[in-house]
Amino acid sequence: MKFRRSERLVDMTNFLLDHPGQLISLTFFSDKYSSAKSSISEDLTIIKETFEQRGIGTLQTIPGAAGGVKYIVDIKEEEARQFIEELCSVMSSPDRLLPGGYLYMNDILGRPQMVNKIGRIIAASYANKKVDVIMTMATKGIPLAYSVANHLNVPVVIVRRDNKVTEGPTVSINYVSGSSKRIQTMVLSKRSLATGSNVLIVDDFMKAGGTLKGMVSLLEEFDATVSGIAVLVESENTEERLVDDYLSLLKLADIDEKDRKIHVTFGNYFSS
Amino acid sequence: MKFRRSERLVDMTNFLLDHPGQLISLTFFSDKYSSAKSSISEDLTIIKETFEQRGIGTLQTIPGAAGGVKYIVDIKEEEARQFIEELCSVMSSPDRLLPGGYLYMNDILGRPQMVNKIGRIIAASYANKKVDVIMTMATKGIPLAYSVANHLNVPVVIVRRDNKVTEGPTVSINYVSGSSKRIQTMVLSKRSLATGSNVLIVDDFMKAGGTLKGMVSLLEEFDATVSGIAVLVESENTEERLVDDYLSLLKLADIDEKDRKIHVTFGNYFSS
Repeated sequence: MKFRRSERLVDMTNFLLDHPGQLISLTFFSDKYSSAKSSISEDLTIIKETFEQRGIGTLQTIPGAAGGVKYIVDIKEEEARQFIEELCSVMSSPDRLLPGGYLYMNDILGRPQMVNKIGRIIAASYANKKVDVIMTMATKGIPLAYSVANHLNVPVVIVRRDNKVTEGPTVSINYVSGSSKRIQTMVLSKRSLATGSNVLIVDDFMKAGGTLKGMVSLLEEFDATVSGIAVLVESENTEERLVDDYLSLLKLADIDEKDRKIHVTFGNYFSS
Repeated sequence: MKFRRSERLVDMTNFLLDHPGQLISLTFFSDKYSSAKSSISEDLTIIKETFEQRGIGTLQTIPGAAGGVKYIVDIKEEEARQFIEELCSVMSSPDRLLPGGYLYMNDILGRPQMVNKIGRIIAASYANKKVDVIMTMATKGIPLAYSVANHLNVPVVIVRRDNKVTEGPTVSINYVSGSSKRIQTMVLSKRSLATGSNVLIVDDFMKAGGTLKGMVSLLEEFDATVSGIAVLVESENTEERLVDDYLSLLKLADIDEKDRKIHVTFGNYFSS
């Protein structure tokens, strides 16, 4: 069956979006659509231009016999800025205030389109870095971690506080929680992470950074390299930050529990 | 700026895939691309035909002034069957065997493309039913629940075994675990679920179904309606099933711990 250009454009767009970061050979497409490679090349030029113009991402072309094309996720700065501004205002609603200076975020982290966009913004920052796997802590970080992983097309590993039978053999470490100063344990299934991996740590919230520092220590046990640390919200209200190099989309600048006022600003995303 | 048809097709495909189940008016597209509605209509016909031919889904057209077009996810039976067959063979690998007849599935549930496809298969079964929200139990069910939610464009709520400060006020129930016969507790943040919602329950694994039955009871406290129950794997090795009406992609038919043999077959997906 032969395909018209219009049908190819629709199907190729779907296919590329479904396989981010994956090298697809021109032969694959030319077989899939029974079309000449020259036509496929022209299709890809149209897709690349549209993706770039609309801020969807880009197509990287790798020449040669082993070459092909790779969709890389991106977002326009303007679009990211507008979305983060919107998030700031949603997050500043006084009903979010919970005892202890925590914020209720389940509704935001429960909406797939929100989570997808947050994930896309984070993924765009690491799309050209070496990332083999995304790591997060159960349970709040999981949706964000999967969203970033989706856009980068890499697997997710989940660190837990307790040992479950379904994990198989595990590696565990003790760490000091930054805010409560208590000794806690974190556990990672041994076979979930290959030795020497490049790992991007993703989490929803960072107070002092004790949990994140714990994850960095845990990664040392796997001889892994930290590709980066990215959080949705950092809380400014801490004496000492336990990790230095991180990306944050939002900053919880101030909470006034008495007057029920929450002040949320931009994180370091646009300044880092 | 005016758009050529080829550019519109690429951008509209991306937009529709990004907004499943959402009604988009023709005016929206005609403004977005500064194009006549008649051209947009023709574009949508091409996209609809390609989506249906390639088993990506379909476009539903709602006529009239308040009308528009809606992308509905789908999958070809052939593609689903092939994928589930592949899953059966991946799941039957003897290294997955854990003490107590559990299977190691972290690697499968950690791969976004796998999880996406499982989610798409489940979502396709419920795309024409009333589903306002996806519910799952922390933590193993979370990735699957988000994938289904992504394809249906509805929020996710997460039931927990313990009460955390970040949940705000909660509703909790006690239930009897089907396999261990122990009394356990499950907790859901009160404001995460609106009264009277239609809820699709999604989980990774069902043994006797005690946890799922617990979730159904919990939903009664929210006057919610159960739209369905969908699991990746059901285990056949149980005397009594505590829930009747469910969808399963895989069935763990038999585990021979001595000879380290796992027998995984199709669930009821193609027979129900």
